[in-house]
Parts: sequence; C-alpha cells; structure tokens
Amino acid sequence: MNILDVETEYFRIPLPTTLSDSTHGEMTDFGLITVRLRDEAGDEGLGYTYTVRDIGAAAVRSVVARELAPLLRGADARAIDQLWQAMWWHLHFVGRGGIAAFAMAAVDIALWDLEARRQGRPLWRLLGGRDPRVRAYAGGIDLGLSVAELVAQTERFLSEGFRAIKIKVGRPHLGEDVERVRTVRAVVGEDFPLMVDANMRWSVAEAVRAARALADFGLIWLEEPTIPDDVEGHARVAREGGIAIASGENLHSVYEFRDLIIRGGVAFPEPDAATLGGITPWLRVARLAEAHNLPVTSHGVHDVHVHLLAAVANASYLEVHGFGLDRFMAHRLELHDGEAIAPERPGHGVALDFDALRAHRVGG
Amino acid sequence: MNILDVETEYFRIPLPTTLSDSTHGEMTDFGLITVRLRDEAGDEGLGYTYTVRDIGAAAVRSVVARELAPLLRGADARAIDQLWQAMWWHLHFVGRGGIAAFAMAAVDIALWDLEARRQGRPLWRLLGGRDPRVRAYAGGIDLGLSVAELVAQTERFLSEGFRAIKIKVGRPHLGEDVERVRTVRAVVGEDFPLMVDANMRWSVAEAVRAARALADFGLIWLEEPTIPDDVEGHARVAREGGIAIASGENLHSVYEFRDLIIRGGVAFPEPDAATLGGITPWLRVARLAEAHNLPVTSHGVHDVHVHLLAAVANASYLEVHGFGLDRFMAHRLELHDGEAIAPERPGHGVALDFDALRAHRVGG
Repeated sequence: MNILDVETEYFRIPLPTTLSDSTHGEMTDFGLITVRLRDEAGDEGLGYTYTVRDIGAAAVRSVVARELAPLLRGADARAIDQLWQAMWWHLHFVGRGGIAAFAMAAVDIALWDLEARRQGRPLWRLLGGRDPRVRAYAGGIDLGLSVAELVAQTERFLSEGFRAIKIKVGRPHLGEDVERVRTVRAVVGEDFPLMVDANMRWSVAEAVRAARALADFGLIWLEEPTIPDDVEGHARVAREGGIAIASGENLHSVYEFRDLIIRGGVAFPEPDAATLGGITPWLRVARLAEAHNLPVTSHGVHDVHVHLLAAVANASYLEVHGFGLDRFMAHRLELHDGEAIAPERPGHGVALDFDALRAHRVGG
Repeated sequence: MNILDVETEYFRIPLPTTLSDSTHGEMTDFGLITVRLRDEAGDEGLGYTYTVRDIGAAAVRSVVARELAPLLRGADARAIDQLWQAMWWHLHFVGRGGIAAFAMAAVDIALWDLEARRQGRPLWRLLGGRDPRVRAYAGGIDLGLSVAELVAQTERFLSEGFRAIKIKVGRPHLGEDVERVRTVRAVVGEDFPLMVDANMRWSVAEAVRAARALADFGLIWLEEPTIPDDVEGHARVAREGGIAIASGENLHSVYEFRDLIIRGGVAFPEPDAATLGGITPWLRVARLAEAHNLPVTSHGVHDVHVHLLAAVANASYLEVHGFGLDRFMAHRLELHDGEAIAPERPGHGVALDFDALRAHRVGG
C-alpha cells in the first residue's frame, strides 16, 4: 500500500496562559508541525510534533518536506520499521538527534496512525494492549506561580480528577522549592503521588543537595536534575540524592536512553515520541526499560502516549500537559478517577481542526 | 562592536567527480551553507558548513536565518564564547547536535573570522600559534575505485606532494580491503603514513576482525569502524583490534567527544568545526584530547582546520579533501613537502567567489 501524498505544515500556536520553567523562561506560544500522509487506497495518517516557542519549527518542516517526503512517496507505508531505518540513514550526517529526530517523529507517528486506521483499530490495540486505562498526572508548568497560585493550580488539578501531580522546581533559592513542595504536599495529603521537575537547572552538587532537601516529602521522582549530556552526573544524583530520577525529554535517540539506563542514571525513562523520532524508537526505549526492570513514563503529546503506555507491560504515569492544543482537537483526552483512557477510535484518534489552525499557519 | 547584519545562503555544489564511501553511497554534489556577518565598523566575517549531497542544507540555513540571526543582530561580536552559549541554549530543545550544530558552526566560524580580521591577524596567530606548518594527508573518497584506479589516485597524491594518505575500506569482502591496503602500501613504501576509513560500515565483531586483518600494514589509524553511538564498541575495537582508532566526524557536541575519550574509544579524536558547532567547541575538544594525552586531527573544511591545528599543542594530521570547493576560493590551501601552511591573510583567509557561486544558489 504505497504512499501517494505527503503534506506538511507548521503553525505558531498561542498558549492560553504564559508558561514558565527553570530553563525555557516565559513561553507564550509553541510550534506545531503536522504531517498528513495519504496512501493509494485513500487512507490517511496524521503525525505531529512541537517545539518550544516556534524555535526550529520551520527547519523541522523543511526536513519533512524536502528530505523525507521524496523518500516516502511511492514507498510501502506498512514497512514502518524499514522506513524508519531509511529515514535515519538518509539524514544521518545531519541527524542522530536534534531537528532530524523531530521531523522523523512527525512522519513516524503519521505512519503508525495510517496503519492503525487502515486496519480500523485503535493504535493501543494494534500494539498489543488489552486495557485502555493509564495512570495520569497533571504536569504543571508553574515555576513562575506564587505559592498561592500554586495552591490554586493544585486544587484545580484535583477538581479535574487528577490523582497525581508534578510541579516545577529550580527557584533561585532552594528554600523556595522546599516551601512549594511542602505546601503542595499539605494540600494533596500524604500518600498522593507527587513529582518534581528541575528542567536541567542544577549542577550535580546542587541537585544532590536539593534531592536531599526534598527527600522527606515522599516524591515519586525528581525529573531532569541536570543537563542531559551528563550521564555520570545523573547516576551520582540517583545514588546520592535519595530520590528516583526521571529523565529523557531531551534525549533524541535510543542510544542516549541506553547509556542513561545502563549507567544507572534514570529510574523512570521518559521518552517523548514527538521528539525522539517517533513511536518506533519510543517502543524500543520502553522495551529496553522493561529489560532493565524499569517503568516507562512519557513527556508531551499525551493523546499519542496514552496509546503507547496502554500497550506496554511496564507503563508508569502518563504526563498530561496543559498545552492548549486541545482547542484544535475534535476529542479531548478522556480522564476518569485519575486515569486516562485510550480511545477506541481508529489510529491514535486525534483529529486536528485544520480550518481553525489556518489562522496560526506560518509555513507549508 | 555590535553585529549589524547577518546574511545566510545555501548552494548545491556539483562535485568534480562522483565520490563514494561505504555509508553515503555515490555523492554527486554537496550542500554549502554560508554566513556573512558585518559589524558596525564595516568589518566582515565569513562562516560556512556543508552537508552530504544537500540533505538538510535548507534546514541549516533556516535555523541560521530564523533562529540565530535575531539573536546575533545587535549583539557584541567579540563575546564569542557568550554568544555560543546563548545559541546553544536558544536552540537546546531542538538542538544538542544535528542540524542545530551545523547552523551554530557556520555562525561561530564567521564570528572567529570577523574577530581575527578586525585585529588584522590570521586566525592561527590569534589563537596562539607560532608555526604555520601542519602535517597533512590526502583523504581519498575512493571505495568505488578499482584497484588500478586506486593506484593511479595514490600516484597522483604523491605527485601533488602529499606525504600521508588515507583510503576507504568497507568493501563487501574483507579480502578486497586487505588487497587494496596491501597494494597502496606497496606503492607508497613501508614507512609512509597510511590510514584507512570504514565510515561506520562494520559491526564491532566485523571491525575487530578487519582491524586484525589489517594490523600488519603499519596503519596510523582505522577511522569510524562502527556507528558513532556505540562508544563501548569503539573501545572494544581499540582494545582488541590492534590499530589506533580515529573517530569524530559524526559527533556533534563536546560531550560526545568526552564520553568517547574517557571510555577509551578513540586515539585520534577527529572533530569537524563545521559540524560540531564551530571553532569554539573544536578548541574545547582539542584541549580535552590534550588533557588525555591524545593528538587531535580534523575532518573536512581544511582551510579552517589548518589554522586550528597550527594553534594547538597536540596537532596530528590535517585531512585534505578533494571536495572541489577550491574552485570557488580565491586562494587554495598551500602545501609544501607534505605540510599544509596556514596563511598569513587576516581571519581564516578564505574568500569565496559569491558571483561564481550564484549559479548554484538554492536558497537565501
């Protein structure tokens, strides 16, 4: 079943509210890059990825349009693994991560969507899942909030049905982080699953000190304590800090995950299908984690990841982000009693409203 | 001295002859991305990078034009290290290598050129060099040549004054590689510096077997025996193969070099300023190699690298590639008795003929 058409566009989507974390500063919008595939039989697949603000979004679209589309047209859409390898090696000299990984991700997600839709099955069932329920957590992007606003956000998450919450850390003074975690812990109660995310803010020594200061709050994990390039540093924080480490949103290849896992730098590998090169490598990371007796979590694009976590044996929590892409989707992620429910719609089940997106279109 | 203007273009340059290696197949052209900076005083700097065929070249230019140029305009051109850090973090989410590293490289090379030209000094002197001479080798891209053509190429290299040669290996049968190396060794004589380059062709087991089969030919190094992502594999080939390993053209950050060096995977680190993010990280890799008692070599853009190797204490051979960019340069790399001579012209001294390039211009 050969691919007939590849359409790729990019959009600058304003965020409903300005978000902030310790590394990316104030974010008022994000970049959305879409890929629509159509095969000879008229079946379609939708893939997408995103960028912080819209930095690099035009380049991601350029790689899809100029480098990958010619490779895809006429190719058998069902041979996803082979196509993924072909894309990897075609882009290799400028690839092995970065913008190439984002471009491949959007294509690969579209290929999986196309395959599942052709079979008329939801993606999570195609991948061998049995139970559509996935524990979910609300991922606050909230470093700029006051303590009072943080409490209000927490109460809103609870009222929305969340049964797990992550907040940002990495304020100028460690005492502020401790106070914020203490406050949120008091609101949610003792056994409520709570995580924190430092977005690479700290040196290893700072991270160890922070982890120890936060160790008594019963946190599920501490995310990205330091830069992703410091594998040994992650391992040190894991050993000396006393909190399980989550990491992976800035890793762009299975090899990077392999190193971090093998060297003891991560307890909750956190691949993002939209920035890792797609569902194909996401599944490899999940299997690799399983082989190391580790759960796998996710980052971003929860409407895709709910399928993947529902399909693997070692699923941990699904991150649910308030990115505001929901405004352009026909269906919102379904949540019940703190669990996300993978939909029964064919494919990943995401239908974007391209008419509404048009106002935000920048290129394509 | 603030930056006033940033101009970036990209070109598809036909190669004088089709080149081939074990990974990239037949190459008939390459992508050239240029960056021209101009500061308030009217001083100019030229940077450039390149791609295999022109895969990703439009995306590299897009990153420079859309993401980096706004960051550069109005910034102090002299604060190169600070600007490099700013570019790294601005692009971080889509960066840490890949296309972002190419874009940063073109900008960083232009910044160093601008700085040296403003001071009226050649780059190698600005960087603390004393002696402009650098041992050079001819880098054959010759896997597709017959043995007779390989002999002819070798004789041409010798007649051009080269006193060191590298050839490709990774033919379908190891016996062919052995025969080719044996033949070239016979032409050049016993003590002539000879290297081989496998362009990631082999598994680790194949690489160890090949290294052992080639161990008696007195090779200076075996380059890229396997994929760059397999650091432990490199270390195994180094330990078990009996030939020093060169690697680095596919590494895009100082961190990747650090891992490869620390874990014993490389004897000749081979950073490429044009694909690593520029001269700024190239120098860091050279210093890191020096701290580990390792020489440093280069890959590509010999007109830039001759300055860098002339400036560092641990210089090994400069790779000289027959890429055909010389046709568009006012000055060719000077070679005497097997040594390249860093020029006394201000900056890196490369002047591209943009009028002649215009016929090959694709975007900008």
